[in-house]
Amino acid sequence: MEVDRNGLEVLGRAECLALLGTVPLGRLALSVSALPVVLPVGFTVDGDRLLVRTTRGSKLDAALAGAVVAFEADHYDEVTGDAWSVLVRGASSVLAHGPGDADRLLAASAWVPATADRWVAIPMDLVTGRRFRVVGPGRLSAPAAHAT
Amino acid sequence: MEVDRNGLEVLGRAECLALLGTVPLGRLALSVSALPVVLPVGFTVDGDRLLVRTTRGSKLDAALAGAVVAFEADHYDEVTGDAWSVLVRGASSVLAHGPGDADRLLAASAWVPATADRWVAIPMDLVTGRRFRVVGPGRLSAPAAHAT
Repeated sequence: MEVDRNGLEVLGRAECLALLGTVPLGRLALSVSALPVVLPVGFTVDGDRLLVRTTRGSKLDAALAGAVVAFEADHYDEVTGDAWSVLVRGASSVLAHGPGDADRLLAASAWVPATADRWVAIPMDLVTGRRFRVVGPGRLSAPAAHAT
Repeated sequence: MEVDRNGLEVLGRAECLALLGTVPLGRLALSVSALPVVLPVGFTVDGDRLLVRTTRGSKLDAALAGAVVAFEADHYDEVTGDAWSVLVRGASSVLAHGPGDADRLLAASAWVPATADRWVAIPMDLVTGRRFRVVGPGRLSAPAAHAT
């Protein structure tokens, strides 16, 4: 098992892709008007690219045209504390699909915001992931107890 | 009810703060080495600032020193489709607490990554939120059906 310098398990690409298929919503981070923004988005993996659905808006469209964005999905189990996070980063492009493509993609997508009418593609060249544990109040882990 | 140009319900500050108290984990977005990064973080509201816990790391610490960051928390109900998202943005500062403060803050926090040993403060001046609905596969909403 590979771990990073913080002791978190490093996930391989195949595992990252598999985990992405287990959750319906992720978050898209980008800059809009020089301020960072994080939006909840529905998504689907389409071959070698990630397709996220977001809501049309002139500021967002402008910000997404070729911008390097980050997409993140994560999950944690309240009982076991097992958690993971996968990050996909790359230059985004806004898609202008015809009805056929849109129908196929809509059918393939999981839960999405009801107003989402815009598809954004992110290449899957840069995919990273970590597995870690979360601890609840009063259940301090060793590293957390060493804080400060 | 106030709605934005995309038809999403705009949440007031008080409601945003109340919703932040209902979930244990959020996500912190920032730039590290000129690439956007999104990290899952535990958090707590401490007066007029948001305190997030993340994992110590030289690249992260450097990136967080005074950087404008975005914190996002969200939730959706799989049965009803009701969803919300709250965004807090501001210039971050890395805290160097003594043991007393750290203990108090640790006790106040909800679920956090077990390796999180670093507190970052974000002022709560810029807090925005939206309420929206998510739809599942095959249950297209009117706006989504108008895609493309």
